Amino acid sequence: MWPDRRLLELLGIELPIVQAPMAGASGGAMAVAVSEAGGLGSLPCALLDPERVRAEIGAIRRRTVRPLNVNFFCHPVPEPDAESAENWYAKFAPYRRKFGLDPSSVASAPNRSPFDEDMCDVVEECRPEVVSFHFGLPETRLLDRVKALGCKVLSSATTVREARWLARNGCDVVIAQGYEAGGHRGMFLTDAVESQPGAMALVPQVVDAVDVPVIAAGGIGDGRGIAAALALGAAGVQIGTAYLLTSESMISSLHRNALESACDDGTVLTNIFTGRPARGLINRIVREVGPMSPEAPVFPMAGDATAPIRYAAEAAGSSEFSPLWSGQSASLSRSGSAGELTRDLATRAQDRLGMLARPD
Amino acid sequence: MWPDRRLLELLGIELPIVQAPMAGASGGAMAVAVSEAGGLGSLPCALLDPERVRAEIGAIRRRTVRPLNVNFFCHPVPEPDAESAENWYAKFAPYRRKFGLDPSSVASAPNRSPFDEDMCDVVEECRPEVVSFHFGLPETRLLDRVKALGCKVLSSATTVREARWLARNGCDVVIAQGYEAGGHRGMFLTDAVESQPGAMALVPQVVDAVDVPVIAAGGIGDGRGIAAALALGAAGVQIGTAYLLTSESMISSLHRNALESACDDGTVLTNIFTGRPARGLINRIVREVGPMSPEAPVFPMAGDATAPIRYAAEAAGSSEFSPLWSGQSASLSRSGSAGELTRDLATRAQDRLGMLARPD
Repeated sequence: MWPDRRLLELLGIELPIVQAPMAGASGGAMAVAVSEAGGLGSLPCALLDPERVRAEIGAIRRRTVRPLNVNFFCHPVPEPDAESAENWYAKFAPYRRKFGLDPSSVASAPNRSPFDEDMCDVVEECRPEVVSFHFGLPETRLLDRVKALGCKVLSSATTVREARWLARNGCDVVIAQGYEAGGHRGMFLTDAVESQPGAMALVPQVVDAVDVPVIAAGGIGDGRGIAAALALGAAGVQIGTAYLLTSESMISSLHRNALESACDDGTVLTNIFTGRPARGLINRIVREVGPMSPEAPVFPMAGDATAPIRYAAEAAGSSEFSPLWSGQSASLSRSGSAGELTRDLATRAQDRLGMLARPD
Repeated sequence: MWPDRRLLELLGIELPIVQAPMAGASGGAMAVAVSEAGGLGSLPCALLDPERVRAEIGAIRRRTVRPLNVNFFCHPVPEPDAESAENWYAKFAPYRRKFGLDPSSVASAPNRSPFDEDMCDVVEECRPEVVSFHFGLPETRLLDRVKALGCKVLSSATTVREARWLARNGCDVVIAQGYEAGGHRGMFLTDAVESQPGAMALVPQVVDAVDVPVIAAGGIGDGRGIAAALALGAAGVQIGTAYLLTSESMISSLHRNALESACDDGTVLTNIFTGRPARGLINRIVREVGPMSPEAPVFPMAGDATAPIRYAAEAAGSSEFSPLWSGQSASLSRSGSAGELTRDLATRAQDRLGMLARPD
């Protein structure tokens, strides 16, 4: 059925499709739907506290016995830098005035916490089959605890060097995250966005560089993309943007509308919302302050300055000041449920693979 | 044998592989080798005058009766801007001093001329089976003359919008040039390099947008990439970087050595050598002046300031000041002859396609 069964056997899944964990945009309902359909459902935990993670995993376990991926960020906790924060905050004064916001008011952006002791306790308690990390791997002490549970460990590489590092440091599977991918880039050994390779180049070079199975990510939006990823040597794919338009997605209707009219060159990598480069649709604030600003405070602190403006704009029906995460293939997406999407992607990928070798 | 025969029938070739025309790096010998192997050999004419084009095509015709692609740039001829040129020239004063160059000396970069009446006369005389353009299409009057000869017309699109424009304006085939591609980007309706889509995203969206066959380009370096491009819906591929390492390539040994040790994230888009964004390996001058400089004079005039420094550095054995064009998959390349490479790519692509549908 599938050309490479390594990932299926390693993770105990039927279809080589991983639903990308998308913090703030997907939760337990989507994870359940994808895992029940035979793919790997993922619970993003970067915006959740340990209590909430425990509750979410519990709720998922009551609805499916299939494998689950639980995803954490593992960025260094930044030292607060008052001067950088103040300068950054000052940049947004005109926008605060536009929306009549108190110039001295501070609203906190959603807090993104890295994987720590408390989270590791929850993982030990809940024992998800798969644990994935973004921005590298946690410190050895924590990673060893996760691996001792028998959890399969995944993380994203944006370059061959990062892939080699992840494989050498205990990853069971490497996600090769192409330049096309939406949301935060997993980069952790480089900060050079302008030399990041696209999936067509990255995937085969990562496959050649590491012995573990490789999951391709970035710009994969339909059965053709899955077939292409497998052709490049990937054992499976991770798909995000297409799931943003499913019924289980938690994005705002503003974000949904923007995705529905997205075009192939309508996204950029921007650091203005969090301090790290992430791909989203181009809107007014990205155009005017970004896309990449050298002044943005260190991740995740940049968000505190944009958050109040975003909320005011959204309340007024505008998405021009919101992070509208998206990969470069939003136009390939179709709506429906996450389970239907997963099965449909698999069927179309199979059809495509068959057609390639048996032309009429 | 091949899943989509439209391109093969339209162009009269056996293998769905187009050798990318690479001005200054490939000539008649490579075109003959690729066409004789069953692919489409290409003669880049951007650096040649009409007399030389006539002679080169004549020499090719004596060595093969197979279809030939003749490639032209069709950029607008720029108005000289003395101030911009002077400011740009001044930026390179420290490098001129470093190499002991007379500060007032001016060396001309290779002259890149757009397709014009005189070139069109040569095309009418030589009647190549295929004519491809870069940076859009020439004015209607000239394009009509080319099409009246029965030449198949190709051009590169870097976005869906450019692809639609090319199909609407007479292109028989659209080359979808992914972000990964080496050399000059064909962009002509946008100058936003930061939103350019990777091949994984661009190719299926272009396939959905136009009725003509699509050739995928960018990051394709071996049989896996070809199979992936066909999976995405392309009818064929255009490959450049892999041909730079063949015996027919005319690049310097400095450029060859740099390509042989290239890594996946070792390239950027830079405009400092010509004024238009082109992908090449990162070296000292790209790092220090670029990669994208808003001060670079309009294409192709930026080259006059870098050329003397480049030549002095190369004479001293350094490639740190040269344009080292490369896509993001240089590491997938192997040496050999262009004919061997073409046949090998086709065989490996076929094997890959077969393996995808008939797993063990």
